[in-house]
Amino acid sequence: MYTVAEIQNIIDIEIKKLRFDKDPKELYIPIEYTMNIGGKRIRPILTLLACNLFSDNIEKAIKPAIGIEMFHNFTLLHDDIMDNAPLRRNKPTVHTKWNNNVAILSGDAMMIKSFEYFYDCDPEILKEILYIFNKNALQVCEGQQYDMNFEKQDKVLIDDYIKMIELKTSVLIAGGLKIGALIGGADISDAELLYDFGKYLGIAFQLQDDYLDVYGDVKIFGKKIGGDIVSNKKTFLLITAVNLAKGQIYNDLIELMRNNSVTNEIKIHEITQIYNRLNIKQLVLKKINENFDIACQCIDNVSIDAIKKKTIKDFVLHLKFREK
Amino acid sequence: MYTVAEIQNIIDIEIKKLRFDKDPKELYIPIEYTMNIGGKRIRPILTLLACNLFSDNIEKAIKPAIGIEMFHNFTLLHDDIMDNAPLRRNKPTVHTKWNNNVAILSGDAMMIKSFEYFYDCDPEILKEILYIFNKNALQVCEGQQYDMNFEKQDKVLIDDYIKMIELKTSVLIAGGLKIGALIGGADISDAELLYDFGKYLGIAFQLQDDYLDVYGDVKIFGKKIGGDIVSNKKTFLLITAVNLAKGQIYNDLIELMRNNSVTNEIKIHEITQIYNRLNIKQLVLKKINENFDIACQCIDNVSIDAIKKKTIKDFVLHLKFREK
Repeated sequence: MYTVAEIQNIIDIEIKKLRFDKDPKELYIPIEYTMNIGGKRIRPILTLLACNLFSDNIEKAIKPAIGIEMFHNFTLLHDDIMDNAPLRRNKPTVHTKWNNNVAILSGDAMMIKSFEYFYDCDPEILKEILYIFNKNALQVCEGQQYDMNFEKQDKVLIDDYIKMIELKTSVLIAGGLKIGALIGGADISDAELLYDFGKYLGIAFQLQDDYLDVYGDVKIFGKKIGGDIVSNKKTFLLITAVNLAKGQIYNDLIELMRNNSVTNEIKIHEITQIYNRLNIKQLVLKKINENFDIACQCIDNVSIDAIKKKTIKDFVLHLKFREK
Repeated sequence: MYTVAEIQNIIDIEIKKLRFDKDPKELYIPIEYTMNIGGKRIRPILTLLACNLFSDNIEKAIKPAIGIEMFHNFTLLHDDIMDNAPLRRNKPTVHTKWNNNVAILSGDAMMIKSFEYFYDCDPEILKEILYIFNKNALQVCEGQQYDMNFEKQDKVLIDDYIKMIELKTSVLIAGGLKIGALIGGADISDAELLYDFGKYLGIAFQLQDDYLDVYGDVKIFGKKIGGDIVSNKKTFLLITAVNLAKGQIYNDLIELMRNNSVTNEIKIHEITQIYNRLNIKQLVLKKINENFDIACQCIDNVSIDAIKKKTIKDFVLHLKFREK
């Protein structure tokens, strides 16, 4: 069995090996930039970990793992245009560094390229893997659309929010796990368990992002605390607060969201106070833990020796206690 | 053998059958709108014609033909954002009717969806077909990038322009023909001939577009004559004129391109006069015919009975003498 560090190293090497020194440079340089901007690489790591649960030979899962990471990076590139985001991982986004047209077109090329990494899968499973990837890729777009819709809605139901992050964040993680498992030789029921594991893990992971934006340790978090609060981003925390707040607290919350004259510092402080009064921290932590627990149950149910599950479970713990 | 009319009818029925009544509606309605906005459908028609050269059963090529048409329509959708085009086939473009974000995201979803139409190909040829489609799809992006680059260049070489339209327009036509041929059971050398046929046909087809914008019959053409002249679009005609013009004619041409105070009517009239003086009409017609001729030679070399080639050759003649 590979360790997480070994798998992470394999992924890093593969991504560094990617070459985009083709013409026209205007198309390919932004792809190279985007692929090398960093990130946690959790999708490809999980794809390889899933494969490794069922096979010692993870070689065949490497290209699909890269394809999934490339598709994920393409979605970030296009999302950043749609969200008008100036920075990604503390570096200028492609549409800021170049322009919108470059970001649209190099994103398109990146998406097309990401499909190619699946075609060398064994012919017996190629069709099934492509259908999984395609379905999940389309769902990511659905999630992004719901996310944009929510920005225009006054009220969002928590269940709808969870459904949205399942689409936008989870399904690609889940699909990568299922694909990795199938390449490793898993039967369909184990592959489905890996999918479900990824689904709940992804939800927990996104809820952590929401949590860390408010309750993260600024020294570890790596970016400013309260960014989501400043932009009125409809996170689990804000949606829950809007749904729970009553009377004066509700009015204060809405006023803080609408008032453009209040400083960012005050807005962050005041809204965090409201969150604290409404017990939002406890509620989001409860939800995060619930999803981590269900994810772990899925792994428990996979029909292989418990000893083989140790690496992936350790990785879950590593994610569970992440502070950035 | 099917007639072109029968094949066109099959394509029309299949496109009408496509259903996008899924949530979120904001994502899927623009895809339905784009697929039903019309067009000549020459890519899917040619895919099925190519299949029919080698097999009486064209059923298996229908879904890939639709996938190619959907990919083509996706490229138009994103190109229209990049070109800031208000109309497509006399209807508002998606980014005009909705907005840029809708156009980016529904285009992304459309592109992802287009891949799915290939996955039911026979497993023995699935991988090969996917590699062809992927390569050509990426080349379409390269062509669009070169096209955008040319808009910023003072001078473009004719060979570079032909290379650009080969990428932007031809390769998807050519790839569709090759895929259709392979599905019909063609051997690799015949499939390659179909590819080359599509390459030259596509170049001829795009050069016709350039030609008709200036020399089309306004009553038949269906849109205003001279649109490319007004927008200084770097067509075969303009590039050739800039390359050939000398002295006062060159100065007049450049002045007309730069001068924003001249009316569209005068600009179209004056630049057309310059084209006429430089024999551009004859030059573009010569180039169109050359490409049609090479395309026909490719079909002549395909190793099947001449009688079977009649339908596709008739279709080429239909395209050759098109006036819109």
